[in-house]
Formats: sequence, C-alpha cells, structure tokens
Amino acid sequence: MELAALTEAVMRRLFVEMEASGRHVHVTQQQAITLFGHRLTSKRELSQPGQFLANERVSVIGPKGEFQNVAVLGPERKEAQVEISLTDGRVLGIAPPVRPSGHVEGTPGVCLQGERGKVVLERGVMAAQRHIHVHPDDAPILGVTDKQTVRLQTYTARPVVFEDVLVRVDPTFQTRVHLDIDEANACGFRPGDLGRILP
Amino acid sequence: MELAALTEAVMRRLFVEMEASGRHVHVTQQQAITLFGHRLTSKRELSQPGQFLANERVSVIGPKGEFQNVAVLGPERKEAQVEISLTDGRVLGIAPPVRPSGHVEGTPGVCLQGERGKVVLERGVMAAQRHIHVHPDDAPILGVTDKQTVRLQTYTARPVVFEDVLVRVDPTFQTRVHLDIDEANACGFRPGDLGRILP
Repeated sequence: MELAALTEAVMRRLFVEMEASGRHVHVTQQQAITLFGHRLTSKRELSQPGQFLANERVSVIGPKGEFQNVAVLGPERKEAQVEISLTDGRVLGIAPPVRPSGHVEGTPGVCLQGERGKVVLERGVMAAQRHIHVHPDDAPILGVTDKQTVRLQTYTARPVVFEDVLVRVDPTFQTRVHLDIDEANACGFRPGDLGRILP
Repeated sequence: MELAALTEAVMRRLFVEMEASGRHVHVTQQQAITLFGHRLTSKRELSQPGQFLANERVSVIGPKGEFQNVAVLGPERKEAQVEISLTDGRVLGIAPPVRPSGHVEGTPGVCLQGERGKVVLERGVMAAQRHIHVHPDDAPILGVTDKQTVRLQTYTARPVVFEDVLVRVDPTFQTRVHLDIDEANACGFRPGDLGRILP
C-alpha cells in the first residue's frame, strides 16, 4: 500500500472531522412561502449531501431578545426546527432542551420574521444533541452503529472528551462530528480539527 | 464515624463543586475612580473569600459589538482584566486567548465605559483557562498540587471530561471548579453540579 493510501486508511479508522453548527432554522415549504414569498433557494452546499445554506435569512424573536440574520438551512422539512445554543437561549429568554434533531415534542416555540412575513412556531426550539453523521461504509471501520452513543476525544486547543455523542448512520451522510457553538468554543474548535471515538 | 460525617468525607475526596463564571471585569483603583467616580463597592460576596460582585457595572465595547451592564468583581487589582467567553469574543469582534488569570501579556485590549468615564485598555481581554481553586487542606485529599493540570469528569446533563484543567492551591481559596459560560453550557451545567478529578 502506498504511504498516502495507508495514511488515509489509518486516519479514517481513527479520526472523524468535526464541524461546528451555528444557530440555524429549518422551515416547511409553506412557512418559507409565508416568510419569503417563495421557497428556499440555495446559496451554498453544506457538507451533508443535499443540505444547503439558503439565501434567505430570518429573525428569531424570543420573549427577552432576538437574533437577526439567522441562517436558514434547506431543503424544507415537514416541521420547523430552530437549533440554538444554550448561550443563545439566555439571550432569547428561552431554555432549549437538548434533543436529537427532529425530536420536537414538548420543545418551546418562538417567532420567526422573514422579509415578507412572520411565522409563530408552537414548538421546535432545541439545542441539538452533539452527534456524528456516519456513512454506512465508515460505521464498521469506526466500530459504531446507528443510535448508539459514544465518547469522543477532541484534538483541539482546549481538549475535552464529550460523552453521550449520538451516532446516526445513513447512506445520505458524510462522516462528520457536529458540535454546537457552546461545545465548539468549550473545546477551542477550529475548522479542520479532528475527534476520535473512544473505545 | 457517623453516616453524615462519612458521607461528607467521601464526597470531599471524590467530588468538587463547580461554578460557572459569566463575563466580568477586574479594574484597578484608579480605573474604578475614572469609570465610577469612586472605588468599587460590594453588592454581594462571592464563593472565593474576599472576592465580591460590585454594585458598579460597565459596558465592554469592542470593534464589532458591545455588552452593557457587565459585572465588575472586586477588590481592585494591579491591572485590569476582562474575562469573556469565545462566544462573547465573536460578538465584540475580539479573539480572546485562553489564559490563566493574571497572564495578560500579549492579550488584546478593549474599551470600558462606566457611568462617569471611559477607560481604554491596551490589553487584558482573555477567556479564563478552566481551573480549580483548591484550599491547601483539600489538595492532598484530592491528590493535586499547585499549577498542575488535571482531567475533570462532570456530573452534568451533558457530561464531558475537561482536560487541561489548571489547579491553583492557595490558603485564600474555597475549593471550587470554575468554568466559563461556553464550557458550562457545553456540559449542561446547573448550579450545585459536581465534578470529579480523574486519576
């Protein structure tokens, strides 16, 4: 095996690239039309295949404060979801529960304002549980299965071991660790930093 | 040994109470007089003996944004220090290095505005390195020495192991872990939560 290929094989077995997710919003088709007058349009592809950063932006308005110019991610979903950090929650005056994406039952609501209209969400505000997107080809290499939680060592400026990191395996995924901004800052994350799933 | 005393002895050997430090400012006597027209006055004692939250508050003004109504901690120090999270740094437009308290060499500056005047700091902005204040009586019980770094397991809603936690031993200290707000939120800290120094 060539050195480059060997290095890549070792890296792929040991390390997972990490990414930090800033606050962002998912909306339904109908909500996009209410907020913007049209469906979401793609500004830039994201690392997860098919996902994109939209040109459209919203204000997220809570009882205590608001964030303007918040990223909207496409494509549209069946139900809206607002992913913020616990730090963001303090600013908004909302205490987001830590949840896996899509688990919106019992989460608090919030108000979204687009350039064409406003949407009041009854629920959907959460801090995303830290997770690892895993492509099925990588799952046996990393020794993980769908819905498992693992411990993740970060190789970052302020190293930590994150526990309860949720593994999600799906053929549409590129293998990546996703942290929220509190977690990214707590470990001193910089783009390109790697993590390692601990046995 | 009575059960209560035994329990306390075991707890004291295994666990350390944690606290989260929000953004705050330390100033000199002269700076207090410039900012407020008088020296700092105590609103409330803090867990570390002799330290207090001042009645006085400042705005911290960076190139990109500002925070109003920021806590000032007393007593006054020989040099000013502005302790913020990396998240705060993004809002201010300042990238704070992660430093032990007092290590202000080479740190960025910022502007402070009080109700009576303004102070431009040439340096002093940092994210405080996570640390454990240890009373000398507790150091041998916890098996730590001054300036050592340790790994700390958090017993929190989002458990993590923090690495590179700086131990500081001093007779003026009450034994406590201090995290910044990014770290506190990354581990889902709530007041009263405990940590354990790992061997």
